[in-house]
Amino acid sequence: MFITFEGLDFCGKSTQVKLLSDFLEKQNKKVNLIREPGGTLISEKIREILLDKKNSGMFEDCELLLFASARAQLVREVILPKLKNNEYVISDRFHDSSFAYQGFGRGIPVQFINDLMKFVISEAVPDITFFIDIPLEVISERKKAIAALELDRIENTKGDFYKKVREGYLYLADTEKRFVTIDGTKSISEIHEIIQNKVLSI
Amino acid sequence: MFITFEGLDFCGKSTQVKLLSDFLEKQNKKVNLIREPGGTLISEKIREILLDKKNSGMFEDCELLLFASARAQLVREVILPKLKNNEYVISDRFHDSSFAYQGFGRGIPVQFINDLMKFVISEAVPDITFFIDIPLEVISERKKAIAALELDRIENTKGDFYKKVREGYLYLADTEKRFVTIDGTKSISEIHEIIQNKVLSI
Repeated sequence: MFITFEGLDFCGKSTQVKLLSDFLEKQNKKVNLIREPGGTLISEKIREILLDKKNSGMFEDCELLLFASARAQLVREVILPKLKNNEYVISDRFHDSSFAYQGFGRGIPVQFINDLMKFVISEAVPDITFFIDIPLEVISERKKAIAALELDRIENTKGDFYKKVREGYLYLADTEKRFVTIDGTKSISEIHEIIQNKVLSI
Repeated sequence: MFITFEGLDFCGKSTQVKLLSDFLEKQNKKVNLIREPGGTLISEKIREILLDKKNSGMFEDCELLLFASARAQLVREVILPKLKNNEYVISDRFHDSSFAYQGFGRGIPVQFINDLMKFVISEAVPDITFFIDIPLEVISERKKAIAALELDRIENTKGDFYKKVREGYLYLADTEKRFVTIDGTKSISEIHEIIQNKVLSI
């Protein structure tokens, strides 16, 4: 089973990914945790370019294609072989992030992103996507708690970027059956329980 | 004016790029030489990933998208601003290389490559493309002269790869008006004269 987690930065995704993974491993399932962008030698090198603050002159079209290239490698080298082997794959972000961040957030035509992602993910369509939704005010608070210097190039984006990204996710939540939207202001354990029950029910 | 050079590896492109550039500069033209993939800080980092022999496990779809990302950055950061400023831009390889190498050579659907390249190059359509065509036997000879250790990841590709790439170029030569095909077995100075005359005639 292929499970992806989506949401704005600081929504608590990574914590939930870890909790779900631990839960499944206790049930003796083979679980592969994946971090996007990254997860292969080549994709990690691409990740470095994407997140390096020195690359602040990166155009949004280049950014989209770098994410796409890292993901294409990850799908073919790791995700598809693991799924064929009947293992669990849990990914912290996947193609919906490109739709929300580069499409709605940066304004690249979403039709092109859809065609591109179809090519990139090939047969690796997630079975469930957990979208952890948090209000923008909560992000601002969580961001303030982190020294600006520690934010990476994308987290540093200013303006109403995150507002548009959230609109992208809400659009997907409305149109994609595999989306499960979770109120990210609930407690960590409450969110984990919702996720755990959903995964067990499939 | 935007001029691109295409052809198989070892066809003599780089020599001709240099000669044309010198010729135009002697005429007091502002000339920008571009190397693909590369030409910007970010694109050079992408180039390193593409050519590193350690990355022999790179899937062809990832490769295509890495070339596309490097090119997208180059177009927006360098090519379009220089062309707007009425300068010459001469590029050693451009989008036709993706069509020939990743499309015909690697077998990725050419329709997808066309759509992708339209997005990548935006308004940066070359005015002339010089295709220096050499028979496959000549490549083999020139390749043999170079120690295998010095070949990069792509030059190292085996089999009838180059045969298919050449078919891709011949297809473009048949269908694209901007293509000027030159017999690459002619002498360096003969080839330069053909190129020089063509550029002056426009």
